[in-house]
This record gives sequence, C-alpha cells and structure tokens, in this order.
Amino acid sequence: MRLIDGNAIAQQVLNEVKARVSQLAPTVPQVAFVRIGEDPASVSYVTKKQKTAAEVGIQATLKVFPETVTQAELYAHLDALNADKNVHGILIQAPLPKHLSETDVFNRVHPSKDVDGFSTQSIGRLIQEIPGAFAACTPAGVIELLRRSGVATAGKHAVVVGRSLIVGKPAAALLLAKGCDCTVTVAHSRTQNLAALVRQADIIVAAIGKPHFIKADMVKDGAVVIDVGINRIPDATKKTGYRIVGDVDFEAVAPKCEAITPVPGGVGPMTVAMLMKNTLEACERAQPRA
Amino acid sequence: MRLIDGNAIAQQVLNEVKARVSQLAPTVPQVAFVRIGEDPASVSYVTKKQKTAAEVGIQATLKVFPETVTQAELYAHLDALNADKNVHGILIQAPLPKHLSETDVFNRVHPSKDVDGFSTQSIGRLIQEIPGAFAACTPAGVIELLRRSGVATAGKHAVVVGRSLIVGKPAAALLLAKGCDCTVTVAHSRTQNLAALVRQADIIVAAIGKPHFIKADMVKDGAVVIDVGINRIPDATKKTGYRIVGDVDFEAVAPKCEAITPVPGGVGPMTVAMLMKNTLEACERAQPRA
Repeated sequence: MRLIDGNAIAQQVLNEVKARVSQLAPTVPQVAFVRIGEDPASVSYVTKKQKTAAEVGIQATLKVFPETVTQAELYAHLDALNADKNVHGILIQAPLPKHLSETDVFNRVHPSKDVDGFSTQSIGRLIQEIPGAFAACTPAGVIELLRRSGVATAGKHAVVVGRSLIVGKPAAALLLAKGCDCTVTVAHSRTQNLAALVRQADIIVAAIGKPHFIKADMVKDGAVVIDVGINRIPDATKKTGYRIVGDVDFEAVAPKCEAITPVPGGVGPMTVAMLMKNTLEACERAQPRA
Repeated sequence: MRLIDGNAIAQQVLNEVKARVSQLAPTVPQVAFVRIGEDPASVSYVTKKQKTAAEVGIQATLKVFPETVTQAELYAHLDALNADKNVHGILIQAPLPKHLSETDVFNRVHPSKDVDGFSTQSIGRLIQEIPGAFAACTPAGVIELLRRSGVATAGKHAVVVGRSLIVGKPAAALLLAKGCDCTVTVAHSRTQNLAALVRQADIIVAAIGKPHFIKADMVKDGAVVIDVGINRIPDATKKTGYRIVGDVDFEAVAPKCEAITPVPGGVGPMTVAMLMKNTLEACERAQPRA
C-alpha cells in the first residue's frame, strides 16, 4: 500500500506555481476573494487561500459583504473585478446566502477569470474538452494527485461515488476526457447494488459526504482510492470535540489498496494548490503574446 | 421482447407539439436552418426537418452558404437571426467545413435559441440541471423513448457506449440527472473488458458508430437497448447498394431484451421530433408572461 501524500504533492504544485509566477515579473498574478457573511468555515477557507497565495507570490485581495448584501451590490463589485486588468482570478466563497442564486452569481464572473470553475461556461468548456478550461479545484486536484502518483488511468474503470456539481460530475468528466481515458461510472444515493459496483473499480473517487461510507468489502484488492470527503465526527479526545474523517473507512480499506489518500492530507491541500495554478494560468493567458 | 417504436413515439411527440403550437396563435414558432455546402446527407437531414416543421405548424427558413463562406459572413447571418424576434430556434447543420471552428460557430447562436443544444452554454446548463436547458436532440430523444416506453430508470445501471460530445456525453448527463437517476457508466474505445461491463447494464445506449458492434453475448437477459447507430453497410439486394444498420446486432440481441429500438425507426425519428419540441419551447419561453 502506498500513501498518496496530498501535502507533498500540493507543495510540488505550489513550488512550480511559484517559479512560474516569478517569471511573470513585473506582472503579479492577482486573485480577488469575495466572502459573504461570517460562516466560520468560509472564513477559515479564505484565510488559508490568502496565506497560500502569499507563499507563491500571488497577490490576494478580499472583499467581505454582510449576509444582507443585495444581488445588485454584489454584481457591481464583480463587474468592477471583471473590468480590472490587474485581477486575473475571482473566487466567491460558497455557500452563498439563500436569497442569492449561486448559479447566477457564479455566472457573473467573466469566464477568463473563473478560476473556481463553477460557471456554466466553465462547466460546458470542461465537457467539451476545450484546452485551458478551468476545472473546479477539488476535482482538478483529484486528477493531479493521480497523475503525480503515477497511477495509470487509460482504460481503467473509475467509479465516482457522488454526483455533485462541484465534485462528482466534474471529476467524472475529467476522468473520461482524452488523456485520462478512464471508463467512468457515476454512482450515487439512488444506485442499486452500490457495493458490487464499487468493488469493480480500479480507481475509486469517494465524494459522498458521509463519514466512512466506503467499507473494506466495497474495495477490490489493488484499487486506488481517492477520498474527497471532509466530515466532522465527535471525538472527546480532541480539544475541539471533533475530528476530521473522510468518506472512506481508511483503517480497514488502506491495507487492500495499491494507493490511497489520507484525510486530512490528501485531496484537501490540492484544492488550494489548484486554485493557485488556475490563477497563475489565468494571468499567463492574459499576457500579451510575445 | 418489446419493440420500441420510434416512429410511433416521435409521432406522439409531434402531435403534442402541434397542439401546443396551435395554442400560441397568432404567434408562429420559427426555426432558422443554416446549411453550408451541398453534402448530400446534410441536404437530406435539413429537408426532412423542414418537412416535419411544416407538419406541426412551425415555420422554417433555410439559408444556404457555399463551402467557402467566411466566419464573418456566417456570424453576420447568425447575429441577424439572434436579433430577429420572430426567430425562436437556430440550427446550423453539422458538419461544418474544416476552416470553421464548430465550437465557435455553435457558440455564436444565442443560448435562448440554441435548439440544437450544441453550444458551450447549453452543455453547461445541461450538466448543471438547469430547468429548460436545451439538450442535443438525439440524446434528448433517447430519454424521451425510455420515458414514453415506461422504462424504469431510477437506480438502474445505464451503460453508454461512446463518449462523443453530441451523443454519448449528453446522454450520460441526462441519464444521471435527477428525475432519471440512473447509475451511469460511459464506456468507449479505450475501455478494458467492454463486454463484461456492458453485460451488467440494465439499459444500454449504443452510440459507437460501428455496425453491429453490440453482440448478443454483451447483453444480459432483460436489458433495455437503445441503438443510436446509423451505419451504411453494402447490400447488393438494394437499389442504393447499401442498407442502414445500427450499432447493435439486432437479430441476435433482440430476443434477449426486455425492450429494444430498431434501426431505422428507433432513435432517428426522435431526433427530428425533439428539435421541434425544443423550437416550440424556445418560442413559448419567448412569449410575454400573462
């Protein structure tokens, strides 16, 4: 069993991003964060992304709106960011307050700056396999983990468990695309005989959002398992009273695997790294051709 | 074994479209066809679509450009159609000459008039499951055949063979979407153990483009088989010297099936019917709300 070290691979990606950023000088890639409200998880995610941006030489700005922000106020800010030549990427931290349509708000970001890959245009480009399409950062991180771990994908059977728009569907699209060339199955809450289906997978991408959902008897010997889950479960031994576990029953599943990602330290760090890579590439594409 | 009669089901759809068209009077839904060059198949497809439009009361116009049309000339025409309030749907008959980018040309059609569902925006909306997203007419026809044949889909395992942008991928997206709720596998030319995989399917969608590719030993007893293939094979007994066959070895496969579409007379007629339905719906949406 090989442990796929997401922290180490994310650091590789970030080192490469940092080197490419320095080659752009005096241009400095810039990502604009937009946060709405004070949801602790959102605050924490944005802070982490700001910190990582600083580490690789990407400038980050943050605009915080109150929960009561109107669509018009938000659009005015996004339009200004779209028009600002010094801004290369825009990230609106989800989730949004319920009075705003996530689809409409994400679609207000200009496609060339949609480094989060959540707009209709970006999703369409991903399915069309248009070179340079921005893929959402978590599924993009899943693919990068596989590539940099030397996992063969062509013709292999990948089973994606979960059909969310931000992970399951784009992960399936990336695995199916030319270059990856997996046979792809998407399973979900309505799937019959889920265990038997997952047991066929050469590659399992677990994105269900349920702690320890994937058990040892659902995994064939020699499978590669990528665990996208980030679940809090009560743990009295921790100061916080909880610990983070994935969608995979790691202790039981790991011994059967050819390779597996841990949680934390697997897909999580890749999400932030891919955001930096997308921002860098948005900036590179915005440069005048030599 | 039940034969799924595409001609009869397409006629049902067209009858319903015709009734809804008449309710829109004095407004008349209008679809604008654009054909480039004189490819015999393209001429034939557009003629068929014009004829069907006339039958259901949809007005159809046709603009033919020579093979040498420039992108600018084509865009000028598309922009005029986009701006014309009397035009509700626009269909550019594929394939296009090689000097034109299909992606760029299809994206020139306004999303509200993209009744062919080929634009990046339409594909993105399909994946996002936005109500009213225009799905490409052939995969939309596949779903309509399943629904109107009373085939249960929720939790069933659908295997789509073929990953093209115009059939395989959108068919997979539609089968996976809420409402259909299939477990979906997409297999393709790189797939290992294809026969064993297809043999698990409750529903097979064959969109490979190879005559008689799906053999009896690849189909489990009681499967539902939708054959999207339209292949010409030599046949000395025919005046034309060829006949049309599907991607499924119908004679051998049919006895094992719960239900199966023939070729011709299966998916083919549905493609044209769904185009009429999409045009009607584009027109309905363009009406001022009462």
